[in-house]
Amino acid sequence: MSIVVVGSVAFDGLKTPYGVREKVLGGAATYFSLSASYFTEVRVVGVVGDDFLPEHEAVMNKRGVDTRGIQRANGKTFFWKGEYGENVNEAKTLQTDLNVFATFQPQLPAEYLNSEYLFLANIDPVLQTKVRDSMPGVKLVGGDTMNYWIKDHRENLGKMLKRVDMLLINDTEAKMLGEDNSLPRAARKVLNLGPKALVIKHGEYGATIFFRDGEFAGGHHPFRAPALPLEEVRDPTGAGDSFAGGFMGYIASQGEVTRTVLKHAMFYGSVMGSFSVECFGTERLQSLTREEIDERFLIFRELTHLD
Amino acid sequence: MSIVVVGSVAFDGLKTPYGVREKVLGGAATYFSLSASYFTEVRVVGVVGDDFLPEHEAVMNKRGVDTRGIQRANGKTFFWKGEYGENVNEAKTLQTDLNVFATFQPQLPAEYLNSEYLFLANIDPVLQTKVRDSMPGVKLVGGDTMNYWIKDHRENLGKMLKRVDMLLINDTEAKMLGEDNSLPRAARKVLNLGPKALVIKHGEYGATIFFRDGEFAGGHHPFRAPALPLEEVRDPTGAGDSFAGGFMGYIASQGEVTRTVLKHAMFYGSVMGSFSVECFGTERLQSLTREEIDERFLIFRELTHLD
Repeated sequence: MSIVVVGSVAFDGLKTPYGVREKVLGGAATYFSLSASYFTEVRVVGVVGDDFLPEHEAVMNKRGVDTRGIQRANGKTFFWKGEYGENVNEAKTLQTDLNVFATFQPQLPAEYLNSEYLFLANIDPVLQTKVRDSMPGVKLVGGDTMNYWIKDHRENLGKMLKRVDMLLINDTEAKMLGEDNSLPRAARKVLNLGPKALVIKHGEYGATIFFRDGEFAGGHHPFRAPALPLEEVRDPTGAGDSFAGGFMGYIASQGEVTRTVLKHAMFYGSVMGSFSVECFGTERLQSLTREEIDERFLIFRELTHLD
Repeated sequence: MSIVVVGSVAFDGLKTPYGVREKVLGGAATYFSLSASYFTEVRVVGVVGDDFLPEHEAVMNKRGVDTRGIQRANGKTFFWKGEYGENVNEAKTLQTDLNVFATFQPQLPAEYLNSEYLFLANIDPVLQTKVRDSMPGVKLVGGDTMNYWIKDHRENLGKMLKRVDMLLINDTEAKMLGEDNSLPRAARKVLNLGPKALVIKHGEYGATIFFRDGEFAGGHHPFRAPALPLEEVRDPTGAGDSFAGGFMGYIASQGEVTRTVLKHAMFYGSVMGSFSVECFGTERLQSLTREEIDERFLIFRELTHLD
């Protein structure tokens, strides 16, 4: 099985209580790809500028990620600079230079079109819908979005929501999208907009998946995966995208999308998020082993299971 | 097995998006007692004023709670008035009249002294330590505290912390007491102050128990219980005390304090908290059945368990 991911490939400038990095490889599609690469074949679609060097692409290729869908454009690669204070749950954006990403028009290589899984990372919902439509035979589509699209591009987002099977967003986004301050009520309202399942990421408190009634043949109760209580979160950047990569990657590796698969996917998503934040940028995601991942899976189990 | 609880018995004035109550039975010891009464024999120690009528005491007696330790004093009962907005996680205190509670000196009836379990709800740590010392043979002691004591009575609180086995506090209190913005690091620092285990309550995200190394013969990993994603939280007042009642009550019912017992206690604590917030005041806690409790326990299991 293989999964296509469409989204940002970027450079990040990072400042956390643990240090500073001027310019490291980042972007939602990058974190997602590296994370998912431990579970399934990954094909990435994005755009980069002249400053994106072979050594950067090699980071993905070393993990077996197919980068033929990364377009080259004249100009600089998307750059984001952010700072985290004592509260690692909140990033303060210091600089956002969209650069070549501003005019990104995703183009899927013909070789990608037989993929059965698709993840639409956070980009303009019009583009997300377009990509979705270009893969009519896809088995399962996951998507992400953010405040900006929820606030000012609601109509376009609404069309996209009818075309994805699962939406992965955080608490604030869910409350904004569902227009309700109660998370469970907001979840129900978001599910009424289209997706069959909604994963809400709670940061250090883990994540919850809510199911639309009757979907994935199971009870009507949601399922919650914990986050690892980590004493040292060196860089929270990309935690959500790493979660999405583990979540979607695991699903793609299973062949069928049952409730049991989705529950395990929630755990693998949390596991990958917990690795991601241990080091700056994508460093930790570059050199994991499947053994380390499965060992941590067992810790997550111990964290939550009665026996 | 029986448990003694020392703390406030009060009247509350409540305003939430679901309605208003001018004066209903409340107080930490009341919520705790009712909650714990579904698991074990409960003996309460507190103080009330002239406005505390037989019908109020009857609420506890109907649940089999021994109220011989409730003293009568001239004056009015402790009164708290609070309001919750759209964000039910935060109470806005509108009025606090300590009344007879201001000069509360806990006195344990001789009949209470053979209890093997003790819970020190949130009162002056000097009084908590005094009560603790009056029960030297007790098997397990749980305690609560709040910002006020952490900020301005640290020395007295330090003495109390050396005399309790488990401390149950919320995120904000844990970070303040551990003087660290990372919850897992704060937890470790609090455990260094005395308790063998620390339960941190995260509101709608559940609760985590952290263990001091080597205690309760198990791995060194914490354990996390979820909260129920409730669409309607009518009144969050007393959720933490109801959690404590379920947690300590279940432990007291088991006879031994193993890691497995503590994990189950975390679930029962969350279960009782979830019932408490469904109605105003202690209403829901007055009329539960053990069957309803165990049914909800299974829902909590389904919420978090892979299989």
